[in-house]
Amino acid sequence: MEHYITLSLEAAQALSRRILQRAGFSAGHVEAITRSVVAAQRDECHSHGLYRLLGIVETAERGGLNPQAMPEVIDQAPGIVRVDAHYGSSLLAFEQGLAPLKEKAERNGIAVLAINHCFHFSALWSEVEALSKMGLAGLAMNPTHAFVAPAGGMRALLGTNPFAFSWPRPGENPYTFDFATSMVARGEIELHHRAGDSIPDSWALDDQGQPTTDPATALDGAMLPFGGHKGSALSTMIELLAGPLIGDALSHETQAANEAGTGRPCHGELVIALSPKAFLGEQSEAGLLHAEKLFEEMLGQGARLPSQRRFEARSRSLKEGVTIPAALYRDLNALAGEEPAGEEENAH
Amino acid sequence: MEHYITLSLEAAQALSRRILQRAGFSAGHVEAITRSVVAAQRDECHSHGLYRLLGIVETAERGGLNPQAMPEVIDQAPGIVRVDAHYGSSLLAFEQGLAPLKEKAERNGIAVLAINHCFHFSALWSEVEALSKMGLAGLAMNPTHAFVAPAGGMRALLGTNPFAFSWPRPGENPYTFDFATSMVARGEIELHHRAGDSIPDSWALDDQGQPTTDPATALDGAMLPFGGHKGSALSTMIELLAGPLIGDALSHETQAANEAGTGRPCHGELVIALSPKAFLGEQSEAGLLHAEKLFEEMLGQGARLPSQRRFEARSRSLKEGVTIPAALYRDLNALAGEEPAGEEENAH
Repeated sequence: MEHYITLSLEAAQALSRRILQRAGFSAGHVEAITRSVVAAQRDECHSHGLYRLLGIVETAERGGLNPQAMPEVIDQAPGIVRVDAHYGSSLLAFEQGLAPLKEKAERNGIAVLAINHCFHFSALWSEVEALSKMGLAGLAMNPTHAFVAPAGGMRALLGTNPFAFSWPRPGENPYTFDFATSMVARGEIELHHRAGDSIPDSWALDDQGQPTTDPATALDGAMLPFGGHKGSALSTMIELLAGPLIGDALSHETQAANEAGTGRPCHGELVIALSPKAFLGEQSEAGLLHAEKLFEEMLGQGARLPSQRRFEARSRSLKEGVTIPAALYRDLNALAGEEPAGEEENAH
Repeated sequence: MEHYITLSLEAAQALSRRILQRAGFSAGHVEAITRSVVAAQRDECHSHGLYRLLGIVETAERGGLNPQAMPEVIDQAPGIVRVDAHYGSSLLAFEQGLAPLKEKAERNGIAVLAINHCFHFSALWSEVEALSKMGLAGLAMNPTHAFVAPAGGMRALLGTNPFAFSWPRPGENPYTFDFATSMVARGEIELHHRAGDSIPDSWALDDQGQPTTDPATALDGAMLPFGGHKGSALSTMIELLAGPLIGDALSHETQAANEAGTGRPCHGELVIALSPKAFLGEQSEAGLLHAEKLFEEMLGQGARLPSQRRFEARSRSLKEGVTIPAALYRDLNALAGEEPAGEEENAH
């Protein structure tokens, strides 16, 4: 029987702040990271939730991530905001680039935020959702580590390269998706490994480039892209646009940081914002209502919209708080240098 | 034994021009459509090659497509060129929007070309390649007809919505892909139907929303997106960005034109151009060379780049001309109101 702890969102925020402050993060990073991990916990994305603080602090302690880095916002071109994260977390860099991105997108119709030299340990949905909240459509993408073989190849080269999109819906949560371009998330293979289960032979290759059903072999070999050559092509596009186009690393180049034991992938990120108002002028509200027809037709035939489970969790968490394993809660308190505050444990 | 005719590229162009002129297309449309179908034939994309002229002329004769339409170029915003095709072919609209798109992309870093109210019967690779030839990275997408069920749904709603990307490579053909977001092209199911073959059960649903292996049932039912919920999400993004965002139709709304028997899908198209020079300044050449490392690694492990077969065909056709079935050659000559010019037939 596993034990769980329920925390209010305020208590979760306070715990995150104490952990990050103790690890030496500047006030700006404390707030940006706290917003991200608490939002993920609220949406029940556990791997990006409070759990993620363990890895963030470890990466800072190993010297890979600079917890005091000051993002530098550069007005690169009329349609490009560049933010050099200077080897800090991507989250504060994103937040500081958001206002100029909005301003450029609204003026020009489309604009880009290019983040350089960042440590990226958050999901992209929260960033594209932030754009939709401001009435913009948004795309986001980034390379990661070389875990995935290109279609027809046999060795890991591409990242699990996530691709996210969000579209503003009047009076509703935005239409949002955020997916890895690998067949499954790497954590999914790790879970099968821990459970002693085999994996489908479409997920990964062994070190000879042959399909494998053994999760340990898969983790030492190469994952496969989703959707065959199409997913592989999309992932390659992400490498190029969020790598060389913005003067940053390809996934197979991010390994160096990891080999030195200093942490997680360090690379760039590309965010594109489009303004319905600039495209449609006075017709922009009509355009958003027009898009609703597509969602109605989807829901009417029994299809679910992406992120629905997340939005349901959000609405639950806003009322009831978030629930995490008691063991994780103890680890987090240890990281904060505190004894657990004696919250009530629930057996599930 | 099927008979084939080999034509020089000049002869193929001349034949296309005669057909389109006789069908009443204005000089601008004649040249734009001829460039497109001859380029596709040259690259051995037969379904978008000279064969496509039959459908183009039929659509014009049925009154759906205006062969004399004058595209209207509108300077919508600093980062948006809008071209209203006024129910003409998308090709001339694209060509007329290209110079302002380039100018905006180079100034701002990123810009959009939004084409409205166009008949679209060409592949997108030629358009994104045109951007790469000018040193830009390009994306293109458009809705089509409602042939594809969303993931988890049971009825056709999404188009086969193609997504194309091209990246300039110094001294090489650009890195280019262009794929349908359906599991396979609709023509692939039609080919299985004509051959009396069954199809894999992952391609389509019957009219009750159940997987089918019968191609006729599939054509009356709904195709499936590639890559499950991820491909379905990508296709939905294309509906939104190349539909409501630019004040144009969703795939399930384009059917009206077809039901009236006037032709093929009429809808919008979205093209995004990004300028490496604007992103990287003096480092832009270094950025393009950096990207080459990714392609080297891919080729080094035996993966092929997308479009390689097309580029090989191109280099062959530039020397040897193009080869089409003799029956198609006779149909095309009939459409041009001429007797075949007595080219030598080859039996294959």
